[in-house]
Amino acid sequence: MTKTIHTLTPTAISSAYSLIKPYIHTTPLLTNTTLNNLASTPQSIDALQGTEYEGQTPATPKIRFFFKCENYQRVGAFKARGAFHALLRLIEEVGEEEVRGRGVVTHSSGNHAQALALAAQTLHIPAYIVMPSISTSSKIAGTKGYGAEVIFSGSTSTEREAVVAEVQAKTNAILIPPYDHFDIICGQGTTGLELHSQYAALVAEKPELSVHGSQTGELDAVITPVGGGGLNAGVATFYADKSTKVFGAEPSFEGGDDCRRGLVAGERVTSVKTLTVADGLRTPVGVLNWEVISDANKVAGVYAVTEAQIKAAMRLVLERMKVVVEPSAVVGLAVCLFNEDFRRRVEKEAPQGWDVGVVFSGGNTTVEAIGKLFA
Amino acid sequence: MTKTIHTLTPTAISSAYSLIKPYIHTTPLLTNTTLNNLASTPQSIDALQGTEYEGQTPATPKIRFFFKCENYQRVGAFKARGAFHALLRLIEEVGEEEVRGRGVVTHSSGNHAQALALAAQTLHIPAYIVMPSISTSSKIAGTKGYGAEVIFSGSTSTEREAVVAEVQAKTNAILIPPYDHFDIICGQGTTGLELHSQYAALVAEKPELSVHGSQTGELDAVITPVGGGGLNAGVATFYADKSTKVFGAEPSFEGGDDCRRGLVAGERVTSVKTLTVADGLRTPVGVLNWEVISDANKVAGVYAVTEAQIKAAMRLVLERMKVVVEPSAVVGLAVCLFNEDFRRRVEKEAPQGWDVGVVFSGGNTTVEAIGKLFA
Repeated sequence: MTKTIHTLTPTAISSAYSLIKPYIHTTPLLTNTTLNNLASTPQSIDALQGTEYEGQTPATPKIRFFFKCENYQRVGAFKARGAFHALLRLIEEVGEEEVRGRGVVTHSSGNHAQALALAAQTLHIPAYIVMPSISTSSKIAGTKGYGAEVIFSGSTSTEREAVVAEVQAKTNAILIPPYDHFDIICGQGTTGLELHSQYAALVAEKPELSVHGSQTGELDAVITPVGGGGLNAGVATFYADKSTKVFGAEPSFEGGDDCRRGLVAGERVTSVKTLTVADGLRTPVGVLNWEVISDANKVAGVYAVTEAQIKAAMRLVLERMKVVVEPSAVVGLAVCLFNEDFRRRVEKEAPQGWDVGVVFSGGNTTVEAIGKLFA
Repeated sequence: MTKTIHTLTPTAISSAYSLIKPYIHTTPLLTNTTLNNLASTPQSIDALQGTEYEGQTPATPKIRFFFKCENYQRVGAFKARGAFHALLRLIEEVGEEEVRGRGVVTHSSGNHAQALALAAQTLHIPAYIVMPSISTSSKIAGTKGYGAEVIFSGSTSTEREAVVAEVQAKTNAILIPPYDHFDIICGQGTTGLELHSQYAALVAEKPELSVHGSQTGELDAVITPVGGGGLNAGVATFYADKSTKVFGAEPSFEGGDDCRRGLVAGERVTSVKTLTVADGLRTPVGVLNWEVISDANKVAGVYAVTEAQIKAAMRLVLERMKVVVEPSAVVGLAVCLFNEDFRRRVEKEAPQGWDVGVVFSGGNTTVEAIGKLFA
């Protein structure tokens, strides 16, 4: 048993990719002319009313999108990457006999629950998933469908953690947290690795898709949602030695932009309570994730968008791209389309424009949820 | 000016493809394990209640799907193929000067309107689109967005045709009907040509996707929606010299299955009045299309599904495949999943199962329409 040094470097992401590649989908990289045109058209004067830019001329950035579609990942979200990686590393570190004997446990009502259940089933590891008893029945059924044992708890984090402790006392199961964990971050970072090479291949074949008109091989920017921060920290780790700038995106509703606020205050915000429609992003940024995201050499900025902007972006993706995404998935696109700070930055930093990689983090929603959102 | 012989043959489809290729998208061919598994699991006993199979053992066909995604076609539907082909052929036949001088006209409230508008704009031809004044504003705006002149009419076919006649009297514009037209049928048939070669390439690379476990190079079956019949007749024309069986799918609601009923009666049903959710399929089959579809050597059968079955199939495609389709697009999938006649036929004809190409015809819907459909 070798003790690995846990340093978040591009090499760690490449190693993670070698491990998980047989278990995950290489998700598609899509482009869309309509959305490029929209992003490269100034917002209306009206759209800036009530903001600090009221009365000013809206920015005219030039943007070409490259959408990394993790909604087409296994279990419908990037979470499958981290879950497979965490379990494969656990087997490497403590041996498969011990892992299979003890099992793994987590608490999640969202995509991490199903991701861990799938990875555990695939690797023949017992999985205990603590879910709030108010979770939607489809999510409970989905998690059970992957063979996991679902244990119900109350909804607060104290209640959930108490049940996890009970499960651990009874089973000795190993806790796999959803985002604040080295191996989870490295797994999610493989999204960036794939995006990087798919972009280079696509633009080499079709240079007209790039604002540069020829292949530079590197995106100007990548933007991902920030909830617990595993995806953003992982992607930023991968891009640390490249010219591509990495950005984060959050919902501003009820203080859901805890990461952005923490960066302004110079200190991580440790708790957040928001009912934003971007329900995957209701958690505060984790400790390890914060170390990466608050490093200005790794993450160039975090921007927030309103509920209306998230819904407008989601409508565009469903109706124009014909791609099903969950609200959390489109906050990065919403920043590019509607956040005037970000748009001014693009205009100012790059008169020729930016090629922007936008990570669609997941697609787990229902027709009823779509109906309610736009009722 | 050469007078072309108008015979619906596979060669005519290949010629159409050479003409339109630069103007259309090669749409993706997708597979989905969840839907394969669902289709290959017997329906519940309950599902057969109230049908002629009540109390009998549900069929267990083995089905592997290959989804041809024309929802990702330009203007969001296969109609772009026929529209480009009809205009390119018109230019070949009467010369571009005459076509550009006279312009083209059609009446449509649906995907043909936008498709003809796009093709006309691309080829610098004036386009007059007669739309019922009750058309949704997004469709009117979409058609105008492609530079077409929109002229409003009443909703009945008599009212619409009267306005078309007025436009023609004033402009001498050439009528491009939505489906009952040789060049339109050949254009739509190119969907089959692409499907055929994409299937062969995919299964050669991944034989495990096929029920045959090795490449036969030809799908066992293809199923498409039948409204006016242009898509089905075109696809059946392409497959006429191959082993692949072609099927049609229709909504049964309020007699929307006019083609199926016509085949039973041995005579084309000439009018149909249904408000099925599959709003692209509310028209009777055209005369030319009927000639192909009623030829048992070309089309092996037409099956109908209920509104509930269409909605169930649409939910699966949105929630599981994360692909946005309009209700008309999923009638073929609904037949494979829920029509017990069809499922028994697969089971009986092929113990080893069928590789089935399913054409998703379009994806033009809105988040509000999705919400209403599943409210």
